[in-house]
Amino acid sequence: MKKIKQIIIQDDREPELQLLADLNKTNLEFYRKRLLIGDYILEDCIIERKTIDDFCSSILDKRIENQIEGMLTTNFKQKIIIVIGNIKDRKVNIHENCVLGKEVSLVLKYGIKLLFCEDEFQFLYLLKNIADKNKVIKNEM
Amino acid sequence: MKKIKQIIIQDDREPELQLLADLNKTNLEFYRKRLLIGDYILEDCIIERKTIDDFCSSILDKRIENQIEGMLTTNFKQKIIIVIGNIKDRKVNIHENCVLGKEVSLVLKYGIKLLFCEDEFQFLYLLKNIADKNKVIKNEM
Repeated sequence: MKKIKQIIIQDDREPELQLLADLNKTNLEFYRKRLLIGDYILEDCIIERKTIDDFCSSILDKRIENQIEGMLTTNFKQKIIIVIGNIKDRKVNIHENCVLGKEVSLVLKYGIKLLFCEDEFQFLYLLKNIADKNKVIKNEM
Repeated sequence: MKKIKQIIIQDDREPELQLLADLNKTNLEFYRKRLLIGDYILEDCIIERKTIDDFCSSILDKRIENQIEGMLTTNFKQKIIIVIGNIKDRKVNIHENCVLGKEVSLVLKYGIKLLFCEDEFQFLYLLKNIADKNKVIKNEM
């Protein structure tokens, strides 16, 4: 019987998700390699994953601008940023209005697709849902 | 001296925000009227506001599908849904994967712009930022 797997290319500096994916019977298969832009690639989607503190500090030091510009130079149809965690739980010293303003700017000015979740389990399910909706499938013998 | 105001049309069934907006010195001015589609209109943006429990129950009873279809029939350039609150705080009996799946579907399948915040203050600041970025301004004598 053929088992359908959904292939995700994952930057090798990202946390390992294969075991969590297998335990949750998601059929996601991660290939780890060094990515210059984005953290995850699923067919026509490029995804940047950010914890809320990453997100906040990348606003403060303007790293997010370079990352967005990098994503916008690619040909991926869907450019997605997934933020994990709540603004109110941030430890980085930044006013919440700056974070909300950046949300709006990403979505309205740059056309980035923004998704939110609260922990790594939810993040995995977002990936699973993105994979399902993009039919990133591979038939395995 | 001219004072610049940013005009937002608000469905008259939505909670009053004018006082909160004035206290926060946002210069937002709300005009309340009955809207058939969406809850807020700012120039080329139509916005549906949903608390997390609204969002969850509208997934369960499929109301969200009609609301999306309604928004998609309009000519507004930006179709936005703002969700207020955390998935983990929901009181509606729905699996979190359904909520995450709907997030992905709204953004990737329907091209809806999704924004998240955690309370009414943050919601107001999202509106303020959207207004700023769309330059919805009116010179008042």
